[in-house]
Amino acid sequence: MVSVVILGAGNVATHLFKAFSNTNQAVVIQWYNRNLNALKSYKTSVEITDDLSQLKEADLYILAVSDDAIKPLSSLLPFENRLVAHTSGSVSLYDIDKKHKRGVFYPLQSFSKSADINFADVPVCIEALKSDDYHVLKNLAIAIGSPTKKVNSDQRKVLHLAAVFVNNFTNQLYRIAHEITESEGAEFDVLKPLILETAKKVQDLSPYMAQTGPAKRNDKKTLRKHLKLLKDPHHKDIYNLLTSSIQRTHGRKKL
Amino acid sequence: MVSVVILGAGNVATHLFKAFSNTNQAVVIQWYNRNLNALKSYKTSVEITDDLSQLKEADLYILAVSDDAIKPLSSLLPFENRLVAHTSGSVSLYDIDKKHKRGVFYPLQSFSKSADINFADVPVCIEALKSDDYHVLKNLAIAIGSPTKKVNSDQRKVLHLAAVFVNNFTNQLYRIAHEITESEGAEFDVLKPLILETAKKVQDLSPYMAQTGPAKRNDKKTLRKHLKLLKDPHHKDIYNLLTSSIQRTHGRKKL
Repeated sequence: MVSVVILGAGNVATHLFKAFSNTNQAVVIQWYNRNLNALKSYKTSVEITDDLSQLKEADLYILAVSDDAIKPLSSLLPFENRLVAHTSGSVSLYDIDKKHKRGVFYPLQSFSKSADINFADVPVCIEALKSDDYHVLKNLAIAIGSPTKKVNSDQRKVLHLAAVFVNNFTNQLYRIAHEITESEGAEFDVLKPLILETAKKVQDLSPYMAQTGPAKRNDKKTLRKHLKLLKDPHHKDIYNLLTSSIQRTHGRKKL
Repeated sequence: MVSVVILGAGNVATHLFKAFSNTNQAVVIQWYNRNLNALKSYKTSVEITDDLSQLKEADLYILAVSDDAIKPLSSLLPFENRLVAHTSGSVSLYDIDKKHKRGVFYPLQSFSKSADINFADVPVCIEALKSDDYHVLKNLAIAIGSPTKKVNSDQRKVLHLAAVFVNNFTNQLYRIAHEITESEGAEFDVLKPLILETAKKVQDLSPYMAQTGPAKRNDKKTLRKHLKLLKDPHHKDIYNLLTSSIQRTHGRKKL
């Protein structure tokens, strides 16, 4: 049983609080936030505080706060030599004040406020300087049902960057598809099974092997038709750039 | 019961043959291909031919051939006034020779040779000039369990273009994520749950509502960190272009 204090009240903090509350291998003994209002609805299930001097002793302090707040908040903690882990993809382990035992507990998933999350679908990337600390973090991840991955700071930063490509940028391609279809009175809904199948395909196959389409085939007639259909010059730019990216990957000539 | 002759031996033709064979509301009475070798393994389950003059009378002829072959093949068919439909996303209905009753039966999905396909996940976009023909095509799609959509040629072309964004381009973003992670010894596998979640999220939520991340937040510090991490100038170009696309969509200033 590991005792945890959570600091922060955003999506990650809230989802972690719920996950920790659902396992008997962890107990959240306190939840801190600078603004206590954000925690009010939880005050019957956990002790809440906005006062760092009132923080209880715990096995682990999780800093689920914005990237910029990690360093200053870790310095302000009125104790030392306890395990303090942040949850950020892009902040160094060494941004945590060196008076602490330092760790990272980075859940690699897209968290929304509303949607429930199944932590079996959330790989937790773990980093720590000492083996004991690593195992505290790893066991906690296992307790909430997450796959775990030992990841150093460089690897974590690169995973965070890659996550922007497969999540934010991919979602923007969905958005553009939405704009294109609606502009002709076609329905974006018709594309939803294809969106899902595209994501499913690379669960077993490499993206390299999964690629198909006019860019890979260098089907110039279709490429020309598509560019003619695109009215927004920014959409044309994206079409051209991603087409030539595919052709570079698959050894075709540029568009 | 609708009798069908399939023309062509590619992925779409093969998957349609299997789907039609699994319903008692359709029967494939003949399968044509220019090169008979490609059909040899099916000769015990269906009559195969490479001779257009031997084509039997059927309710429907499906031209599941390459885009460029649709027009000439439809002219070569030695009959008239029968229903002939192609399966292409980007070819006009009017490319089919006007001596026929013309239709389009476009399954909007990514077909691989190997993977089995569930036609419940394949919306079929249907176009026809006459109501009777439309219903033949629609009932056939329903018979194989597909959702159907009445789509005119302009809408179909735009859906085909949008499919390139959500399938080929998205897959290329997965590929870049693969390159980035492997270059640092991180594992692409860790991203797979996020890839799936990103696709699932827009099944219920619009891509606009689903967007998150540093570009949308205009989190300049993270954007700078990411650009610094990217070594390949082409990856940087894609990062910049899709970041500014997100910021245009969400009313942020350009990078």
